[in-house]
Amino acid sequence: MDGPTSWTVTPLDDGVTAPWGVRAAGVTAGLKASGKPDVAVVVVDQPVAAAAVLTANRVKAAPVVLTAEHLVRSGGRAQVVVLNSGNANACTGPDGMAAAQAAAAVAAEAIGCASEEVLVCSTGVIGVPLDQAPYLDGVRAAVAAAAPEGGLDAAEAIMTTDLVSKEAAVHVTDPEGGSVTVGGMAKGSGMIAPSMATMLCVVTTDATLEPEEAAQVLRRATDASFNRISVDGVISTNDTIILLATGSAVTPVDAPAVEAGLTAVLTDLARQVVRDGEGATHLVDVVVTGAASDADALAVARQVGDDNLVKTAIAGNDPNWGRIIAAVGAADVDIDPDAITITVAGHEVCTGGMAAPFDRPAAAQAMAAEEITIAIDLGVGEGQATFTTCDLTHGYITINAEYTT
Amino acid sequence: MDGPTSWTVTPLDDGVTAPWGVRAAGVTAGLKASGKPDVAVVVVDQPVAAAAVLTANRVKAAPVVLTAEHLVRSGGRAQVVVLNSGNANACTGPDGMAAAQAAAAVAAEAIGCASEEVLVCSTGVIGVPLDQAPYLDGVRAAVAAAAPEGGLDAAEAIMTTDLVSKEAAVHVTDPEGGSVTVGGMAKGSGMIAPSMATMLCVVTTDATLEPEEAAQVLRRATDASFNRISVDGVISTNDTIILLATGSAVTPVDAPAVEAGLTAVLTDLARQVVRDGEGATHLVDVVVTGAASDADALAVARQVGDDNLVKTAIAGNDPNWGRIIAAVGAADVDIDPDAITITVAGHEVCTGGMAAPFDRPAAAQAMAAEEITIAIDLGVGEGQATFTTCDLTHGYITINAEYTT
Repeated sequence: MDGPTSWTVTPLDDGVTAPWGVRAAGVTAGLKASGKPDVAVVVVDQPVAAAAVLTANRVKAAPVVLTAEHLVRSGGRAQVVVLNSGNANACTGPDGMAAAQAAAAVAAEAIGCASEEVLVCSTGVIGVPLDQAPYLDGVRAAVAAAAPEGGLDAAEAIMTTDLVSKEAAVHVTDPEGGSVTVGGMAKGSGMIAPSMATMLCVVTTDATLEPEEAAQVLRRATDASFNRISVDGVISTNDTIILLATGSAVTPVDAPAVEAGLTAVLTDLARQVVRDGEGATHLVDVVVTGAASDADALAVARQVGDDNLVKTAIAGNDPNWGRIIAAVGAADVDIDPDAITITVAGHEVCTGGMAAPFDRPAAAQAMAAEEITIAIDLGVGEGQATFTTCDLTHGYITINAEYTT
Repeated sequence: MDGPTSWTVTPLDDGVTAPWGVRAAGVTAGLKASGKPDVAVVVVDQPVAAAAVLTANRVKAAPVVLTAEHLVRSGGRAQVVVLNSGNANACTGPDGMAAAQAAAAVAAEAIGCASEEVLVCSTGVIGVPLDQAPYLDGVRAAVAAAAPEGGLDAAEAIMTTDLVSKEAAVHVTDPEGGSVTVGGMAKGSGMIAPSMATMLCVVTTDATLEPEEAAQVLRRATDASFNRISVDGVISTNDTIILLATGSAVTPVDAPAVEAGLTAVLTDLARQVVRDGEGATHLVDVVVTGAASDADALAVARQVGDDNLVKTAIAGNDPNWGRIIAAVGAADVDIDPDAITITVAGHEVCTGGMAAPFDRPAAAQAMAAEEITIAIDLGVGEGQATFTTCDLTHGYITINAEYTT
């Protein structure tokens, strides 16, 4: 991704159905007590190159296991993604796996593809049996309703504690007239952690990718986006990002341009997830520079972004750099404490590892913005990385101490 | 520590001055805006075997660096520990180191020992210059006031956001008439994390230990106690546990018995720290059994004990085993999800990785107790470990979003 950029990435006001030939729908199957939409599908016209990044949790929900199996059996091709909210279908035993398999079979029959060309995702409560009949009825209804204008319905049907639906899309063009579209949707606001932010995400493109290439591109774009955010540092049992590449673009751009577009969409969605983090009132970019390596920079940024004391200080608009530098030192990275400079919301609060003179009321006021940057210069090298997080507030406690199993 | 126990550990209602010949004091030097006591000393009659376990944070407060240096220069001997609250003396540059050195020099002069036979600890706000004059006056006053009955005053003078002072002591006896006393004090309620709970602790004994032996015993007892607790997963810049072994016991017990007494005192203090965790309303023992190894068991127990979603569920008396099993799976340990059994406050809520039938209102009522156990049987081996944590509540947010730098 280095070197001169020979393409242009333009945001579109669209979602997962932005690329030509992608259809989607969201319907109400009755899995949510609230009666809100809870089953979604994303459908393309034929089996296409597909890839998934799945949770690192050792306890994997049935649909996660099934999606991995299906991608192996299909040789990295899929035609349908079936998603539901209201039940994670995790820790549900053989019945849970049977439900996921039945959902794939029902969708495959309705579409006319092989069962292994259907990928399945679930989100919601863990450990509660999934009622198969309404689930399968929902899948049938969603497949029947799938349409090019159904992206928003699908994005809404996968919401759990999310306050807003999450869509993003871009158009990537190059000087030679090449052009591809990338679109996506995501859900997630709690159980969001690095090493795979806890969420569901489906991203589509009309670019042409071989299955193996799709897997590599998706892994790199995920590492650059969802693996650099955190709400609460909790890795879920259901994390899934799925890419479908239809290959329908007439004059596609080259692979790096596709990856740039994919990274742009995933980064946009990841930031929407953080902005909608449970109880969050601030989005915070932790920007680390001057590290010995990019890996060191990321380790420090992650440690700061996951620190409960830093996150509560941000909730209080408190430029408490002592907590920030303590978090820097807690990372397993060689540093020189006396070389550290910290800037919070534009105010340099720590220079050479010690207090800098700064206007505290002005800094607190600057921190009241919805999006702020904590910039940390380690002063020892050229490595840099950004990690995006949110604050830890009373709202998070209220949501999670009162959310019923 | 395995095999038949040939000694008896009896709790005493006492603290750091429990062993004969240990004196202590706490005075008000004016470092705290509240006007509460803020400088303490622990003094013995001559330089004795001493050891310290110090923070793993790469950003170390001046007194942490100085204490490590002094133990090297003195060959593991000390006569005085100087402690202050109200200012961590961290990220304070050369002036901060000069203040710590001056405190040691002042105490050494007043006692008549070498400067390197004084160990120094600080706790409080990071990054604020420590006002040397009142600090040194406080050290002089505390040394002058040191007395065998001053243990509680010292324990109170090191409190920060602590709601209660923390003392513990035991008497260790063996059938041959051997007898030693171990006493200690600690502070800590926030910035409490594994890999050295963030706190100050001084523990004393009249047992006879060579300096190297003292260091080994203290390391092992710390690993079994303070390194198995967490309040908020944050490692501070100032963590310090200091052991002074006076050797004044007339008929001491053998080394394993001393270690048992030391472990008992540190475990008692560590549990007091968790019980006083910022905003905590529950103390939670996460007991993992059936792991492939003790190390695996500890990794799982730590992951569960540090999980924000588990901790908020406990705050809400919610037997939300889905969050617990998700945390188990997030540990970097080989498990069999289908072999996991989880019991919360005496109610088996998960069997074979799936929901167990249980009386939810009764389980919620049992969880309302101040101290509860989450028992996790991984079902794959004989390894076991316990990790102790507290819940994550509105109180934690209030304290830390409003605590001023």
